[in-house]
Amino acid sequence: MTRHFNFCAGPAAMPTAVLDRARSEMKDYRGYGLSVMEMSHRSSEFIAIAEQAEQDLRELLAIPDNYRVLFTQGGATLQFSAVPYNLLGQGGTANFLDTGIWSRKAIDEARHLFGAAYVAASSEADSHRVLPRQEDIVLSEDAAYLHYTANETIGGLEFDYIPRAVHPDGREVPLVCDMSSSMLSGPLDVSRFGIIYAGAQKNIGPAGLVVVIVRDDLLHQACAGMPSLLGYQALAKGGSMVNTPATYSWYLAGLVFQWLKHDVGGLEAMDAINTRKAEMLYSAIDNSALYSNPIAPQNRSRMNVPFVLADERLDSLFLQEAEAAGLLNLKGHRSVGGMRASIYNAVSEQAVDALISFMADFEQRRG
Amino acid sequence: MTRHFNFCAGPAAMPTAVLDRARSEMKDYRGYGLSVMEMSHRSSEFIAIAEQAEQDLRELLAIPDNYRVLFTQGGATLQFSAVPYNLLGQGGTANFLDTGIWSRKAIDEARHLFGAAYVAASSEADSHRVLPRQEDIVLSEDAAYLHYTANETIGGLEFDYIPRAVHPDGREVPLVCDMSSSMLSGPLDVSRFGIIYAGAQKNIGPAGLVVVIVRDDLLHQACAGMPSLLGYQALAKGGSMVNTPATYSWYLAGLVFQWLKHDVGGLEAMDAINTRKAEMLYSAIDNSALYSNPIAPQNRSRMNVPFVLADERLDSLFLQEAEAAGLLNLKGHRSVGGMRASIYNAVSEQAVDALISFMADFEQRRG
Repeated sequence: MTRHFNFCAGPAAMPTAVLDRARSEMKDYRGYGLSVMEMSHRSSEFIAIAEQAEQDLRELLAIPDNYRVLFTQGGATLQFSAVPYNLLGQGGTANFLDTGIWSRKAIDEARHLFGAAYVAASSEADSHRVLPRQEDIVLSEDAAYLHYTANETIGGLEFDYIPRAVHPDGREVPLVCDMSSSMLSGPLDVSRFGIIYAGAQKNIGPAGLVVVIVRDDLLHQACAGMPSLLGYQALAKGGSMVNTPATYSWYLAGLVFQWLKHDVGGLEAMDAINTRKAEMLYSAIDNSALYSNPIAPQNRSRMNVPFVLADERLDSLFLQEAEAAGLLNLKGHRSVGGMRASIYNAVSEQAVDALISFMADFEQRRG
Repeated sequence: MTRHFNFCAGPAAMPTAVLDRARSEMKDYRGYGLSVMEMSHRSSEFIAIAEQAEQDLRELLAIPDNYRVLFTQGGATLQFSAVPYNLLGQGGTANFLDTGIWSRKAIDEARHLFGAAYVAASSEADSHRVLPRQEDIVLSEDAAYLHYTANETIGGLEFDYIPRAVHPDGREVPLVCDMSSSMLSGPLDVSRFGIIYAGAQKNIGPAGLVVVIVRDDLLHQACAGMPSLLGYQALAKGGSMVNTPATYSWYLAGLVFQWLKHDVGGLEAMDAINTRKAEMLYSAIDNSALYSNPIAPQNRSRMNVPFVLADERLDSLFLQEAEAAGLLNLKGHRSVGGMRASIYNAVSEQAVDALISFMADFEQRRG
């Protein structure tokens, strides 16, 4: 059995220690005589697993008591529908920062469902290579909330600050963040947000699960006539068990939280590791003649590092040799081209070292 | 490591052979150097897994070519919203057979979203102990489709025929079936249905995944302004990859399909086993003085067998001794009380034998 280095943008690498644990508990969870995926979601054994996962996540992110944590389904994409449904019941318009493909999908869905969406700032004129600054953000008069994408997985951009969602008249509206590809990469001031949501398949666990963190006072402004299962209030009241949740994915997420707490040592330690990994890789790119990354330095993503080769005719050779060297999934998104190394929490410093060595070697031989 | 006998109604027992396979491939899928849950859903490796799963399901159920198979998320409960959204775009009213708790949930959601739902027949007057016959079903004039629940997991009722959805004037409308707790329990004439959907966590795989089988001509009558991710047409066009699907659950479902094909020998063989299991258990109940089941014989579920003890003060002792004997999750649903033995595909004849022996022994000692 071999474990290669996996730079997939998502579904992404899982910590090997988590897979070891899941493997050992696959057929008999701690003497209960059955797999976690065979447990009733209402059994005391599974409730204990679910509550422990929530408690660990609360501890890792220091989530304040006035926030509810939901474990639901449908990916972040279903939240593109759920967020406006839950927040526009009293009218108003959803406001957005348009920073690339993922924020654009959220904008399109709000427009599709509600006929309107307001772009409060955009990086489109800069080809999404530099993110809007706070002073660029101008909300609409009727803004109900401001939505942004903390990290654009495809473009490789990441906000270096948490925006404030303030009208010119000083009135503040809730800040909503799609944090799918950066949640848990470091500490976070949750109190700055109204809603944070994240598809699991980057830093949390397997695809399908979604984590939503929502401030209590935002549970009461949902639209009538939305699909019941998308309602945060019902999910919060039912402990995310309005219907059968994705129990096995929830359990795996819990194992990831345990790994972050005990093996890594918490999110400050994770943050330091992620900073080192990203600095080393960007530095290798910047110091080479063959590789380049077009993103403004302050907005470079720590999670997703796109780069292009000076001669794109070398692309397929690069990918072929990388794969032969055990470096998987480096091909860039089809809309961007080139390469992309996703270096989420579970991608070790050793993996990044191996990638950098390979890149240097390839440049020397082929560049 | 021990594997107990698990009679959970869902998430339900998985075939041990499937867990063995998943366990052995957990860290390295067939030499690729990564887990299936770490694969890009767009990688050739995962596409092969996904396509094989669909092909095996098509083969098992002999699904005609003019039906699409979708692997989506949110449980059958999200389909309670998705079905009316997808079928009521040209007006009309959703018609239902009201046969218990699950059909009632589907009715309530259609009414919630569209303001109306018509009950074409109901077993409520019979306390949901006998199902409507074909001659009891009278559709509304404006019926757009007829929805029913093939097997009521909580009540323990199962249709012994496939209803026809025909107006008095002879016009036929699509038949829609929630088959969550009976799909794959035996062969099925898919061509009788417009839409079949099933939450995976009984006979298919882990909770979170949903399988939808939809006839081609029904892809084109969706409502405008529904959540994009619920649209069957987009899911069909995108190969169920409009967004990241629940890849690991999809893979596990594929292993279950392989088990059904190769270990069991197909759905006719599965059908015979399920018939034997159910006949033995109901016979043991009927021939005892302590246990009883209230459902009309022709409507008794082959998958979920509820029974009560003549003296309910024995309930907790029964459950306690059963658990000590390695017979898990026999407690009835809170809305029904008593016991329930769910004997899905993965619950072996050996497990049912062990339950029957325990029941006889308990009756002799305590009855």
